[in-house]
Amino acid sequence: MFTITKKDEKTKARLGVIRTAHGDVNTPVFLPIGTKGAIKSIAAEELKFWGAQMILANTYHLWQRPGDGLIAKAGGLHQFMNWKGGIFTDSGGFQVFSLGKNVKVTDQGVTFRADLDGSTHTLTPESSVQIQLNLGSDIALVLDEFPAAETDKKIVAAMVARTTMWAKRAMAEHKKLLAHSINPGQMQWGIVQGAIFEDLRKQSAEEIRTLEFPGYSIGGVANGGESPELMYQAVNYSIPHLEEDKPKHLLGVGTPEQIVRAVALGCDSFDCVVPTREARHGKLYVNLKPQDGGGYYTMNINLEKYKEDFTPLDNTCSCYGCTNFTRAYLRHLFASGEPLGIRLATMHNLRFYLNLMQNIRDSIEAGNFDQILKNYKDQTIELKAQ
Amino acid sequence: MFTITKKDEKTKARLGVIRTAHGDVNTPVFLPIGTKGAIKSIAAEELKFWGAQMILANTYHLWQRPGDGLIAKAGGLHQFMNWKGGIFTDSGGFQVFSLGKNVKVTDQGVTFRADLDGSTHTLTPESSVQIQLNLGSDIALVLDEFPAAETDKKIVAAMVARTTMWAKRAMAEHKKLLAHSINPGQMQWGIVQGAIFEDLRKQSAEEIRTLEFPGYSIGGVANGGESPELMYQAVNYSIPHLEEDKPKHLLGVGTPEQIVRAVALGCDSFDCVVPTREARHGKLYVNLKPQDGGGYYTMNINLEKYKEDFTPLDNTCSCYGCTNFTRAYLRHLFASGEPLGIRLATMHNLRFYLNLMQNIRDSIEAGNFDQILKNYKDQTIELKAQ
Repeated sequence: MFTITKKDEKTKARLGVIRTAHGDVNTPVFLPIGTKGAIKSIAAEELKFWGAQMILANTYHLWQRPGDGLIAKAGGLHQFMNWKGGIFTDSGGFQVFSLGKNVKVTDQGVTFRADLDGSTHTLTPESSVQIQLNLGSDIALVLDEFPAAETDKKIVAAMVARTTMWAKRAMAEHKKLLAHSINPGQMQWGIVQGAIFEDLRKQSAEEIRTLEFPGYSIGGVANGGESPELMYQAVNYSIPHLEEDKPKHLLGVGTPEQIVRAVALGCDSFDCVVPTREARHGKLYVNLKPQDGGGYYTMNINLEKYKEDFTPLDNTCSCYGCTNFTRAYLRHLFASGEPLGIRLATMHNLRFYLNLMQNIRDSIEAGNFDQILKNYKDQTIELKAQ
Repeated sequence: MFTITKKDEKTKARLGVIRTAHGDVNTPVFLPIGTKGAIKSIAAEELKFWGAQMILANTYHLWQRPGDGLIAKAGGLHQFMNWKGGIFTDSGGFQVFSLGKNVKVTDQGVTFRADLDGSTHTLTPESSVQIQLNLGSDIALVLDEFPAAETDKKIVAAMVARTTMWAKRAMAEHKKLLAHSINPGQMQWGIVQGAIFEDLRKQSAEEIRTLEFPGYSIGGVANGGESPELMYQAVNYSIPHLEEDKPKHLLGVGTPEQIVRAVALGCDSFDCVVPTREARHGKLYVNLKPQDGGGYYTMNINLEKYKEDFTPLDNTCSCYGCTNFTRAYLRHLFASGEPLGIRLATMHNLRFYLNLMQNIRDSIEAGNFDQILKNYKDQTIELKAQ
C-alpha cells in the first residue's frame, strides 16, 4: 500500500507512493478540500491539470446532505462528483465536535443536533465506517475523540483510551463490510491522539500501532489555539512510535511554511482549508525569488495599492489567473463581488500549494530538501515592516 | 462594416457578417453579458470555446467602478478582461434611468445619484462617447432617452426628439475623438426609440437614419412590463424605415423563443441577462427532441424530483456540466450553496443560447429557418400541465 522510494539524509522527509484504488499518489502530497463533494468554485477534474492527486471530502457534510445513501446510489463519491483520482475521507468526528454544546459523547458514540435542521443524530465508530463505505473513498479514517487545545491531562487520557477502543470497533466493522462495498479497495487508517502530552502521544501511537492499520493520521493538532511549535512537538511525540514504512497524514495542517516543517518531521500527506478559505477573502500566496529573501508572502488583493497594478499576481506562477489577468483586474473582480474573482483566487492558491509539494518532492529526490527547509519562510510580516 | 451573405426567402431573417476591430462576427448573434467586465463565474476567454463572438459590457457599471480612466490605462477593456473577441457597449443611459427618482433629464444630459456611493454625476451624449472610447469597445451606442412601458404619447414624442438631438451631438463627439482613442476601429451605432407608437417609431427611425450610422439598436423594448407581442410590434414599426443592409441590434431581448421570432423580423444581434440570471437561480434550459414536441423547456434544478436523477441535465448538450455531471449532483451543489453549481448552470445556459444561434444561422444557410420559427417554442408551461 505504501512504498518509500527515497529518504532525505538530513531530515526525516521521504519520498513515497501510496497505492490507492484510484491510482498512485506521490508523497509528500497536499489534498485540496472538497468539503461537500466540490472544491469551492472548481470542478474536481480541473485540479488534475495542476497536479492534484487526491482530495479530502468531509464525511459529516456528505452524510447530512445529500446523504451517503444517495451517493452510494450514484455509484460512490468518485462518480457523483466525477473525480477520477484518490479520495480521502475523515471520520465525521471533527465536524460533530465542532458543533459545540449540543454534543454528547459516550462509549457508544457521539450524539449531536445537526446544524442543517436541528435533528438529533448519533455517530458511532461503526456508522462512521458505514458512511465512508457508502461514499467509497480510497482512504477512510476511524472515529476518534480529541480535546480542545488546552485540556486537563486526565481528560485527554480518557479520550486516548476511547480512541483506541473505537479504533478496534471501527476496524472490525470495516473488515465485516468492505468486500461488499462500493470500493473494496478502500483502506482504513488509524488515528493518533494525545494532545500535547508526550507520554499520551506515545501511548496512543503504540496502542493504535498494535491494530496494524496500513496508515495513520496524526490528529488533534489543528483544532485551534495551539502554536505551531506545540503542533510540531505533538508530531515529534507521535511519529517515532509508528512504523517508519507506513504513511502518516497530518490532519488539518497547514500554512505553506508549516507543511515544509512537517515534511521534515516525517509527515507524508496534508489537508487544509487555508488556501481555499484565504482565496475567498482575497488573500493570495506569492512566491519570492531567492534574491528577495525566498519563501513567499500573502497579499491582500483588496488593498488600494493594487488598483492600478497591471502586473500578474505572481509572475512565477503558471495558473490561469496569473497567465491571463492583472492584479488590477483581480482587485476589480473582488471589489465588484464578481464570482470569477474567488474562482481565480482559489485556483491560484491551490496551484501554489500543489507547486510547493512538487518542489518538495523534487528537492528530496535531488537531495537538497534541507535548503528548502532552511529558506522557505512566510515573509508577509517582514515585508509589511519594510 | 456589415455584409449580408444570405437572405431567408420566407421571413426577414438574414445571415451576415459584422466586421469589427476584433474580428468578424457572424449574425444572427447573441452577446453574453459581462456587466462589470466579467461574465458571472466565467472567464471571457472560456466563452470562445463555445462559440461566443462578441460580449456586451455595461458602460455605466464600468464608468462607476473601476472607472473608464483606469481601464484606459490598462489598455482598454479587451486587455483588462483578456477578451480577444468583439465588445459591444451600451450608452450607460439604461442603468442611469433605472436608478429611479434621483434621475433628472435636461437637454444637456442626465443627472443622477450613483448607487455605489450616493455622489452626483451627469451623463451627457458627449461623456457617454468619451467613456466608451476609454473602454475601447468595438461597437458603441449613442445616449438616448426612453420611457417606461406605458407612457403618454406626448412625452414619448419629446423623448424621440431629444434622442435625435443627442445622437447628432454624440456623433460629432465621436468623430472628434475617435482617431486618438484606444480603439480607432470603434463603430458608433444609433438608437431608434418611440415606444409602442407606430408613427413615433417611424419618425425616430427616419431621423436617426439621416445621420448615417453604420448600424442601429432598437431600444425601449425590454424595459419591463410590455408583452412580447408589443415588443415584436415595436420592432416591426422600426425596421422597415432603416436601410436593409445595416445591422440591427435588439437591446435586452430576450428568451430563446423571442430571439427566434425577432430574427424572423430582421434583427441581427441580441443581448440579454436572462440566461445568466436564470442560471444563478437554478433555472436551466433543456432542449426537447422533435418527437417530444421540439423547442425547449426551463427546468428548476432545485426541485425535489431531481434529487436522485442520475441523468445529464440535457443529453443533447455538450457543455462541461452536461458531459461530466448528473442532475442529482447539480441539485446537490445548489442545495449546498456551492459556487460550482452557479458556474456550471451559467455555462450551460450560455452554451444553450450560443447553440441556438448556431442552429439559427445553419437553418438560414440551409433554407429551412421557417421550420425553426414554426416549431421552436418554450414548452415549460405545457409540460407542467401534463
